[in-house]
Amino acid sequence: MAEHLVTPWEVKGDIDYEKLVKEFGVEKISDKLLERIQKHTKEIHFMLRRKVFFSHRDLKWLLDEYEKGNKFFLYTGRAPSGPIHLGHLLPWIMCKWLQDKFDVEMWFQFPNEEKFLFKKELSFEKAQEALNENILDVIALGFDPKKTHFLIDTKHADLFYEHACKVAKKITFNMVKASFGLDDSTNIGAIFYTSMQAVPAFLPSVLKGKNIPCLIPLGVDQDPHFRLTRDIMPKLGYYKPSIIHSMFLPPLSGVEGKTSSSSSDKNVILTTDSPKEVKNKINKYAFSGGQPTLEEHRKKGGNPDIDVCFQYLRMLLEEDDKKLEQIYKDYKSGKLLTGELKKYTIDKINEFLKKHQEKREKAKKKINDFIYKK
Amino acid sequence: MAEHLVTPWEVKGDIDYEKLVKEFGVEKISDKLLERIQKHTKEIHFMLRRKVFFSHRDLKWLLDEYEKGNKFFLYTGRAPSGPIHLGHLLPWIMCKWLQDKFDVEMWFQFPNEEKFLFKKELSFEKAQEALNENILDVIALGFDPKKTHFLIDTKHADLFYEHACKVAKKITFNMVKASFGLDDSTNIGAIFYTSMQAVPAFLPSVLKGKNIPCLIPLGVDQDPHFRLTRDIMPKLGYYKPSIIHSMFLPPLSGVEGKTSSSSSDKNVILTTDSPKEVKNKINKYAFSGGQPTLEEHRKKGGNPDIDVCFQYLRMLLEEDDKKLEQIYKDYKSGKLLTGELKKYTIDKINEFLKKHQEKREKAKKKINDFIYKK
Repeated sequence: MAEHLVTPWEVKGDIDYEKLVKEFGVEKISDKLLERIQKHTKEIHFMLRRKVFFSHRDLKWLLDEYEKGNKFFLYTGRAPSGPIHLGHLLPWIMCKWLQDKFDVEMWFQFPNEEKFLFKKELSFEKAQEALNENILDVIALGFDPKKTHFLIDTKHADLFYEHACKVAKKITFNMVKASFGLDDSTNIGAIFYTSMQAVPAFLPSVLKGKNIPCLIPLGVDQDPHFRLTRDIMPKLGYYKPSIIHSMFLPPLSGVEGKTSSSSSDKNVILTTDSPKEVKNKINKYAFSGGQPTLEEHRKKGGNPDIDVCFQYLRMLLEEDDKKLEQIYKDYKSGKLLTGELKKYTIDKINEFLKKHQEKREKAKKKINDFIYKK
Repeated sequence: MAEHLVTPWEVKGDIDYEKLVKEFGVEKISDKLLERIQKHTKEIHFMLRRKVFFSHRDLKWLLDEYEKGNKFFLYTGRAPSGPIHLGHLLPWIMCKWLQDKFDVEMWFQFPNEEKFLFKKELSFEKAQEALNENILDVIALGFDPKKTHFLIDTKHADLFYEHACKVAKKITFNMVKASFGLDDSTNIGAIFYTSMQAVPAFLPSVLKGKNIPCLIPLGVDQDPHFRLTRDIMPKLGYYKPSIIHSMFLPPLSGVEGKTSSSSSDKNVILTTDSPKEVKNKINKYAFSGGQPTLEEHRKKGGNPDIDVCFQYLRMLLEEDDKKLEQIYKDYKSGKLLTGELKKYTIDKINEFLKKHQEKREKAKKKINDFIYKK
């Protein structure tokens, strides 16, 4: 098993989430905490129930505040560089659910300079093309335009920059070197960047002139940005943001590493893939936990824990716990064949994407409703 | 004589401008070049004639372009942290003259985050108070509001940040370390800052959709920012900006170092000083090139080259070459006494400040005419 490496720029190796919890100094989301959430939300989202969102920072405090009548806002984001794949959707789907259940605002940051600064070959113009596409995927998830505000770093820089400087003054190069693995050959925009990512965690408090708690659902790789931010925000007079961390949806090639659209479009399901492309990708590339031959599979059974299709069902596509459990058992016993599991997953993905793509098309007319008006 | 040190953050020691020309790799402004300027301006400003503006980069090219009908724009700026003193005015007075004579636009940057980022003790709020005051001094110099645009970094960051990132991507930490003497304990806002200072050198070209030559009159200590910028701008498709460099008006304590308002308000003449304060400061603190006793002075004569009052007259206050020469001769011969030279300088300063303070008061109603409208 390869040593895992998790930074905001790179995820490598077989990720040991238990180890990550210790390394990052975060807390696991306990069943007791889920019960407390359920008091407010009535039901509990399957991504929470199944611990796809597995850890948190200060979630108890956030609920304390909520129960005192001090509502939080949600903050998450997307640094555009390429198309959206299923893995990207996890934190956003969670945001949509939290927005509905807690009736809260969502501030969604599009740091349209981040990938430009960190990827040598990416032009600013290519990043903007990606931005225009990515925006559609976020809108398609059904956020309430009245309670959702998109912030685009370069467009809203007049709101960001002053506050980014206030954050930046408290961060030395030494501190970012350690957290992000930068060095003296890193460009000075990339060095500064984390200050920009910090701002939406307190910008609503600035704009509304009062201190509002913040909850950030994100992929665990983005945690280092906020470890720094959390230390700094109280020094600027704001609450530390609370965070919930999701696991990575595995790439089609297997459970090692994070689903990355930049590695290869063949290795992920894009939100714009056609039913035929989905079928082809899953059949051709989705790593299977099944046995080499039908006979052997019937006899020994498959391993759903390393089967990519099963993981996609568990983490994203199959909301029904009973169905999921049945699939798990049947696959493990050898009753359910790899081809059958793949067929089921393909249908589930295509069903999801059909609706998503329709909403994505309609989103083109709604963009202005979501972009924050200064 | 102390070794000189000239960076944008620190000027120390007795400045050897000849040596600086070699160190910085700039060209001296020759009489031939002045003649060429005079063809367009009819007269030549005494600060050019007396080589207070002593060196340049690409000024010949700028004039080539101008003669082809390709007008330049002016760019200079002020990082607010405290009050304005006479030394600050040198490049701005030159800008005003160049604007009038060449009928060109001026873009004036107020990087209201710079000093906040570089000075540990300076709060953002204090820098903004200084900004509001500093703006008045610039307006008071008489710029044409139709052709003058103030850019305030945090307010106009939505115009700046995208382009600052494009600059930043081409500058590594190694490069700024070398140029600005930063280290790993420098904050990441200060590291990024030079990208923001680069932007106004090509922002008018961006906004107008065509490549416009740029001339930057500045104190020679600011040159390192633009050495970097000049390398990068052609890579982004813009002309290298042309620069003319001014010497530093010496502090009252003597010709060592740059007049710095941050060191002590006693050591400089502020634009808001009363006639009494001016009289007191000059009499008490202005370093004299005269002899210890009246008898000795009459006999040996004074040294105008190290006399602060004489330098103020030469660099800023006495436009009349003949009068200045007479003062030089009379002081050197011992005919003119130190008390008399001080009296003359005090009157000159107070005459200048009376008008400046009146215009400064009127400027309060004109601020909006100067701030660039997005």
